[in-house]
Amino acid sequence: MSLPLGYRYSSGYAGIRKQESNDVALIVPDGGPAAAAAVFTTNQVQASPVRISRQHLKASKGKVAAILVNAGNANCATRTGDRVALASCKAVAKSLKTKPKHILPASTGVIGVELDPKLLVDAVPKLVAGLSAEPRAFEEAARAILTTDTRMKVASEEVVFRDGKVSVAGMTKGSGMIHPNMATTLGFVMTDAAIQPRDLSAMLQRTTQQSYNSLTVDGDMSTNDTVVLLANGASRVRLNERERKTFEEALCWVMECLAEQIAADGEGARKLIVVRALGFKTDEEARRIARAIANSPLVKTAVAGSDPNWGRVLAAAGYSGVVFDPLKTDIHLQQELVCKGGLAADFDEDALKEKLNEDRVDIRVTLRGRGKGESRFFTCDFTEGYIEINGSYRT
Amino acid sequence: MSLPLGYRYSSGYAGIRKQESNDVALIVPDGGPAAAAAVFTTNQVQASPVRISRQHLKASKGKVAAILVNAGNANCATRTGDRVALASCKAVAKSLKTKPKHILPASTGVIGVELDPKLLVDAVPKLVAGLSAEPRAFEEAARAILTTDTRMKVASEEVVFRDGKVSVAGMTKGSGMIHPNMATTLGFVMTDAAIQPRDLSAMLQRTTQQSYNSLTVDGDMSTNDTVVLLANGASRVRLNERERKTFEEALCWVMECLAEQIAADGEGARKLIVVRALGFKTDEEARRIARAIANSPLVKTAVAGSDPNWGRVLAAAGYSGVVFDPLKTDIHLQQELVCKGGLAADFDEDALKEKLNEDRVDIRVTLRGRGKGESRFFTCDFTEGYIEINGSYRT
Repeated sequence: MSLPLGYRYSSGYAGIRKQESNDVALIVPDGGPAAAAAVFTTNQVQASPVRISRQHLKASKGKVAAILVNAGNANCATRTGDRVALASCKAVAKSLKTKPKHILPASTGVIGVELDPKLLVDAVPKLVAGLSAEPRAFEEAARAILTTDTRMKVASEEVVFRDGKVSVAGMTKGSGMIHPNMATTLGFVMTDAAIQPRDLSAMLQRTTQQSYNSLTVDGDMSTNDTVVLLANGASRVRLNERERKTFEEALCWVMECLAEQIAADGEGARKLIVVRALGFKTDEEARRIARAIANSPLVKTAVAGSDPNWGRVLAAAGYSGVVFDPLKTDIHLQQELVCKGGLAADFDEDALKEKLNEDRVDIRVTLRGRGKGESRFFTCDFTEGYIEINGSYRT
Repeated sequence: MSLPLGYRYSSGYAGIRKQESNDVALIVPDGGPAAAAAVFTTNQVQASPVRISRQHLKASKGKVAAILVNAGNANCATRTGDRVALASCKAVAKSLKTKPKHILPASTGVIGVELDPKLLVDAVPKLVAGLSAEPRAFEEAARAILTTDTRMKVASEEVVFRDGKVSVAGMTKGSGMIHPNMATTLGFVMTDAAIQPRDLSAMLQRTTQQSYNSLTVDGDMSTNDTVVLLANGASRVRLNERERKTFEEALCWVMECLAEQIAADGEGARKLIVVRALGFKTDEEARRIARAIANSPLVKTAVAGSDPNWGRVLAAAGYSGVVFDPLKTDIHLQQELVCKGGLAADFDEDALKEKLNEDRVDIRVTLRGRGKGESRFFTCDFTEGYIEINGSYRT
C-alpha cells in the first residue's frame, strides 16, 4: 500500500472499550498544520466531537495538526461531552506544541454514557511517542477505529503528474448500524497534494456525494458521522487545473472504495448491492429512486435470499416520491433483463438465482425517454445476522 | 361480535393460491348499491384492481354493490391486469343484477404473474350463492383475504343514539411485508349508518390518517393498498351533527384497532410498538418525528432485544428532518423516564428490561416549550423471523 508522504500514525488502548483492544488512534501531518476539510452528520443531535471539530475547523481556517479518534464511546448526549472533547484536544496540542484549535476529535461508540476524560488525556503521550510513517502504523490505526466491522477498511491510489507523484490514502470504519454504536461512519483521507482549504472543501463535498452520501445500510444516520480530508503538500507537486481534475477523480475513487467496503461489511451482510438508476429527468430524481430501492428492507431481504423479485424493486421505485411511468421502466438484475416496460421479461429464473449468489449484486433501473439523470447507491443485503447483532447489544 | 345490519359475506377457494385454502371473498350490502368511500396506495406503480376501483367509484359517484377480494395474486404489472379485474367485476355485476361500475375489485399477492381471469369469474356464482349475514360468514371472509398474517383481524363497535343503534365492523389483512405479497394492506369497513358518499369520504380520510396512515412496519408501501368504507343506512338511524361526531369516533376506534392488529402481526414480530411524539410545533412535525422513530430498524431491533437504548430513539428523531433542541427532549420507555433534556436519566435498567418484555412497548418523545403538536405511530419490533419470511418467499 502506497501512502502519501509526510504523515505519521499511532494507536493504542486507552481503556475505553471493555475488552482490551486498541481504541484510540492519532493521525499527524508532519511539519505542523495541513490544509483540511470535513463533512459531518446532519443529524439534529450532534455529538460533542462533531461540534468541537466544526468550531476548530472554523477557528483555524481549515488547518489541522492532528486528528484524535476513539472507539468505544460516542461522547454524545452526556453532561460533560464538550469538556471531554476539549480536554483531549488540549492534551494533543500540548504534546505536539500547537494550539487546540488545530486538533480535531472524533468518537464512535455508545451514546449517553459519560466518557472519562482522563482515559483520553492519559493516552496522548504514548500515542505521540508511537507516531510512525510505516504502513503498519497506518493499518493499526485503521484497526483501532473499528467497532463491529469484521474487516479493516483502507484504500489508496497514486497519480503520476509531469511534476511528480501524488498519493491519496484513506481509512474508514462503519458497518451499517454499528455495535455498540449508532451506525457511525468515520473516514479519514490523507493526501500529499498541495491544495488550499477552500478548494479542498469543495472537492470533499463533491466526492462525498459520490461515495459516503451514496451509501445506505439501514437508513439510520448517526450523531457522530465525520469524514476528514487532509492535504499537506508534502509531494511538492503543483497541480494545474486539468491535473487537479485528475486528482479529484483519484480522490473520488479512494472514497468510493472506502464507502463500498462499508456497504459490503454491513452488519450481518453477505452481499454488496449496487443500485443504479438511469434515464431520469435529473440526477436528483435518479438519486431518490436509487435510494428508495437501496433502503427497502424487502429488496434487501430478497437479495439475501437470491430471489429475483423485481416486483419489490419496481414498488420501491414507485414510493420514492418521483413521478415516472412504470410502463417505460426496465429493470436488470446482474445485467439480466427481468422487467421490460413494467412487465415481466422472459428470463431463466434458476440461472439468475445462481448469479444472485455472488457477493456483489447489481440492480439497474432504466427509464426510457425521460432524460439523462443518473445515480448510484451502495448498500448490502439484509440477513438474520443483522437482527442478532442489533437486538441485544447492551446485554 | 355485533355486525351492522344489511350486509352479507361469502368466501371460497378459486384456485389462485397454490395450497387449497380460501382465496376469494365477497362483501355485499343488501338492497343494491350502498354509499362508499375508499383510499388507495399513493405508490406510482398501481395494481389493476386499484385503477379499476378508482374508476368505478368515480363513475358510480360512490355507490358500491359489492367488493370482490382475492388473495394469492396482486394482479399487478401484468399484460392483462385491467382486463382480468374488469372481467371479474362484470361477472359479479351480472350475478347481482347490477352494473360493473358498482363493483370494486381488490387483490393481494405476488406481482408480475398473470392472473387467469377464469379462476375469478368461475368462482363468482358459488360466492353469490353462499352469501350470508352470519358472523361466521364475516369471519370466514376475513380469513380468506389473509396472506402471511398469523391471525384473523376484525374489529367492531356499536353506538346507541336517541333514534337507535348504529354498528361498525371491519376486517383487514396485512402483516408488514406480506408473503407472497408486497406489504399489501387491505381493509373493508361496513356500517349501517346513513351517510352520503361525500361525507363518508371526508370521514374516511380523517380516520385513515389516525389509523392506517399511522402504521409502519418496514416503510415499504404496496402497489395494492386499499381501504374501503361502506354505509348502507340499514340502521334507519338519522344522525344529527353531534351524533355524527360520536359516530366518527367509533369508526376511528374500529380503524385504529384494525391498524394496531396489523402492526402487532408484523412479519416475525413479537411486540406492538406505539410511538408518541408530543410538544412539537405542529402535528405534522410530531408526525415526522414519530414516523422516523417507528421506521428505524435500530429502534425496532433494540425493542426486540428488550434493550432500553434511548440513544437510538433520540438519534432517529434527530434525522427526521425536524429542527428541535435535543437538550429540551425527554424520552419515556414504558412510562419510565430514560432521557431527560437529552441526557441519560436515572433509571433501573434491569426493571425496565423486564417491562420491555411485554407484548406492547410504548415509546414517548416529549419536547418542552415548543408547542402542542402531537402524533402517534404504530409499528412492531424487528426479529430474525422477518428476514426468514422475506428472504426466500418464492423459493
